[in-house]
Amino acid sequence: MNWIKNAVGRMVPAEIDGRALRPFRGAGADKGGGRQAGALIRAASDYKNKLLSSIDKAIDACEIRDGMTIGFHHHLRNGDLLINLVMEKLATRGLRDLVLAPSALFPVHEKLVDYIDRGVISHVEGSMNGPVGRACSLGKMKKTAVLRSHGGRFRAIQDGDLKIDVAFIAAPCADSHGNANGLNGPSACGPLGFALADSLWADRVVVVTDNLVPFPCYPWSIEGGHVDFVVQVDSLGDPAQIMSGTTRITRSPTRLLIAEYAAQFVRDSGIMTEPNFSFQAGAGGVSLAFVKYMSDMMAAKGVVADFVRGGSTKYMVEMLESGMTRYILDGQSFDLDGVRSLRENPNHIETNPFVSYNYHTKGCFAQRVQVSVLGATEVDLEFNVNVNTHSDGWLLHGIGGFTDAADANVTIITAPLVRNRVPIVVDSVTTVTAPGEMIDVLVTEYGIAINPRRHDLLERVKKSSLPICSIDELHHRAMQMTGIPQKPEFTDRVVALIEFRDGSIIDAVRQRIVRS
Amino acid sequence: MNWIKNAVGRMVPAEIDGRALRPFRGAGADKGGGRQAGALIRAASDYKNKLLSSIDKAIDACEIRDGMTIGFHHHLRNGDLLINLVMEKLATRGLRDLVLAPSALFPVHEKLVDYIDRGVISHVEGSMNGPVGRACSLGKMKKTAVLRSHGGRFRAIQDGDLKIDVAFIAAPCADSHGNANGLNGPSACGPLGFALADSLWADRVVVVTDNLVPFPCYPWSIEGGHVDFVVQVDSLGDPAQIMSGTTRITRSPTRLLIAEYAAQFVRDSGIMTEPNFSFQAGAGGVSLAFVKYMSDMMAAKGVVADFVRGGSTKYMVEMLESGMTRYILDGQSFDLDGVRSLRENPNHIETNPFVSYNYHTKGCFAQRVQVSVLGATEVDLEFNVNVNTHSDGWLLHGIGGFTDAADANVTIITAPLVRNRVPIVVDSVTTVTAPGEMIDVLVTEYGIAINPRRHDLLERVKKSSLPICSIDELHHRAMQMTGIPQKPEFTDRVVALIEFRDGSIIDAVRQRIVRS
Repeated sequence: MNWIKNAVGRMVPAEIDGRALRPFRGAGADKGGGRQAGALIRAASDYKNKLLSSIDKAIDACEIRDGMTIGFHHHLRNGDLLINLVMEKLATRGLRDLVLAPSALFPVHEKLVDYIDRGVISHVEGSMNGPVGRACSLGKMKKTAVLRSHGGRFRAIQDGDLKIDVAFIAAPCADSHGNANGLNGPSACGPLGFALADSLWADRVVVVTDNLVPFPCYPWSIEGGHVDFVVQVDSLGDPAQIMSGTTRITRSPTRLLIAEYAAQFVRDSGIMTEPNFSFQAGAGGVSLAFVKYMSDMMAAKGVVADFVRGGSTKYMVEMLESGMTRYILDGQSFDLDGVRSLRENPNHIETNPFVSYNYHTKGCFAQRVQVSVLGATEVDLEFNVNVNTHSDGWLLHGIGGFTDAADANVTIITAPLVRNRVPIVVDSVTTVTAPGEMIDVLVTEYGIAINPRRHDLLERVKKSSLPICSIDELHHRAMQMTGIPQKPEFTDRVVALIEFRDGSIIDAVRQRIVRS
Repeated sequence: MNWIKNAVGRMVPAEIDGRALRPFRGAGADKGGGRQAGALIRAASDYKNKLLSSIDKAIDACEIRDGMTIGFHHHLRNGDLLINLVMEKLATRGLRDLVLAPSALFPVHEKLVDYIDRGVISHVEGSMNGPVGRACSLGKMKKTAVLRSHGGRFRAIQDGDLKIDVAFIAAPCADSHGNANGLNGPSACGPLGFALADSLWADRVVVVTDNLVPFPCYPWSIEGGHVDFVVQVDSLGDPAQIMSGTTRITRSPTRLLIAEYAAQFVRDSGIMTEPNFSFQAGAGGVSLAFVKYMSDMMAAKGVVADFVRGGSTKYMVEMLESGMTRYILDGQSFDLDGVRSLRENPNHIETNPFVSYNYHTKGCFAQRVQVSVLGATEVDLEFNVNVNTHSDGWLLHGIGGFTDAADANVTIITAPLVRNRVPIVVDSVTTVTAPGEMIDVLVTEYGIAINPRRHDLLERVKKSSLPICSIDELHHRAMQMTGIPQKPEFTDRVVALIEFRDGSIIDAVRQRIVRS
């Protein structure tokens, strides 16, 4: 195997599984070129009735064969029933070497590990949260997994790097033409944008719904003109698990402090009171707390945000409803208030990875966000961030929108300095998900480090009362607390590629050695 | 030149201007195949500021060269100022052999004839209403013009048959990212869907607006991620001419009778009271009258339509507001009530030629419409319809959505038997726009002819009081009134191709001989 050192100093393969790879060259270095994939040309006269009576009939109609790539979206998160259902049927048919291309997998998909073991699935191209990621770390996949950000997945499908043969789209609301959205029905999940690229480029597209409504189903997040077949099933998902569960603000004093520091940084740097203020923060305890603190500080100064970016939560919805933001631009709803608001409030706007995150466009919303607040499993002295593996080397998380959202004007990482006696600020991250050049600020409970590249930010908070320090100081402090951590052991085999949003390879994950 | 006889018996060229042509083989015969065009891959990092201070700067930035194809949309109709403005600038720069690819031209674009004469424009691929069509008939274009339906234009751009180098999109409302719609501002026109294909596939896309609003401009009928440059100008159009003018119901007793017959046909055939009733009717005096009669008849029976298809008018808006239709699915707004309703009423839904009309999709809305009511310049004994040329041979109209909308379950042509002493029902139409197989009913003031292919419709109205007759009878009657009309004289030169919605050639228009 030939290896190339990329722009963050990682050795990455020049080729894998017969596919030539491009090493990462810098966050804005890629300038595009070439042409996007062209979808198959179909004729409307062949689409007079798309309704099929079962998933099996759809599998037949799609003529799924060994080696094909099957796409799914993850808006139903840990409540999704469809991926397991379809893959079980494909396994029962004796199919082999399928490429599973979901936007993400969750613990509920643990049973897929068996299909990986049995060769039904050759590998996964998509995010793996939990058990399937662990199986990947153990080297169980026949070929190399590929992890992409939300925008990166759209780009890969658009550019033809990831060719989806058949996409199954779980649709909480759909009509017989295949128009679909996620707003209504027992499996309502909010936006449906993660399925957009699949619908545009997959050779065959199957909309599966537990809520068939009269034509026209509107809004049509998925347009029926891209859909081959529509199947009605009893249930797509478990509503309790579709909503993320992490919808409560953290009670940990440490985490509350981190969230408060982050909000104070935005306020005291003067960013909050500049025109066009906007921010993005996800779900999870710290993010929710950040939104609450930020919102209180905005209220105190009478600031109205141009927009806030979801994943939406009830705290963002409260901001919209109380006039503290003009819009929510929402890629996924994390709780029922998010879904309700998206359905009812015309200023709560559904987005998708094309408009929000895709790097191979003529610009996307990520670039227009003033402040992004994101989490991490590790940050290193170069401000490189890891969100995929833990320090123990296990691949347990997808990229999510991380690398895309990090294109904001100011990207802030919130993380405790130490998590379960493991340092979060390290000399060198186990896996580079995003390059340090995209990361501007690291907020921990012990201090706030600003990337030296951002002289402007250093200048802005010089006179504030914030605990500004260097990242070396944070690292030193962490080492004092934990001692030098033991590094995990890996074989030479690459089990997963970490693809940057432009399609280049920013790092590779190796098979973990497990000593019994 | 090689000629091939197509499925409606017309001799069409096998090749023209170096391009191989497919003869029309039947309305549903084309089954697609191959892949769509792939748009250029661009990088977001090159799109940090799209605002340019003038049209000239945009022309520079787009590097427009001789022979390039320039796209425009026609939502501003006869009020459009942009096409003339841009073409004047290109002419001033000495550019030559440009291909003008508007979705349509109107009388306001008469000055373009001069650029055709001077070789600035080699030919037009797009609809020509009025003077430019007349110039085409006279053989003034260097190459052969191509006329396509709204859906056909989308298909041609999607499939790569019509490659737009640079598209200028007149946007009544836009932000600095290029997100745009037609809902607000002095040039508000309603939907903006005719520009969608240009935005998706043109190499360069320039949004020109007289109403720059803060980000995000929503809804984004045009998505900023497809837009290269944004230019602000003082005025895009003349509001009085943007609205079509034909917004008054006809007062002609003949035309009122035709409209009433058409509505009675829909009622008495039982179609009106079937589940899923829906209809489409355009602007123009007869169509407006039809909507009014239809709506009265529906009210009398308590019928609520599933949807009605625009172009929207105040009569459709009244239906929506009084609960007589669940939705308006609207491709263009013909009056200010249409624009207002689209802006305010969530059940007035903007559509575009992809979802509505494109044949090379996995189905489009046109197929789901129960009744389409359309006009014509000629209908012949085979029920073939001409909407492009008049019986005198002049090319004076585009196809509009005719061939697409004729895919409805029941397509009804409304036309007076005789217009200005010229028969409308003829032995053979001057130009075939749509094949007789798509036309189900012809309604004239002297009688209603049903296409013999539609036994079901003949059966349904057998016992009605409607003046049902054969098309031969109508033709005979017309001949009695007008005598056998003189046929226009043509040279052998093909000046325009009439493309069917699937990209095949249904007819060719020849140069008209003018004797002084």
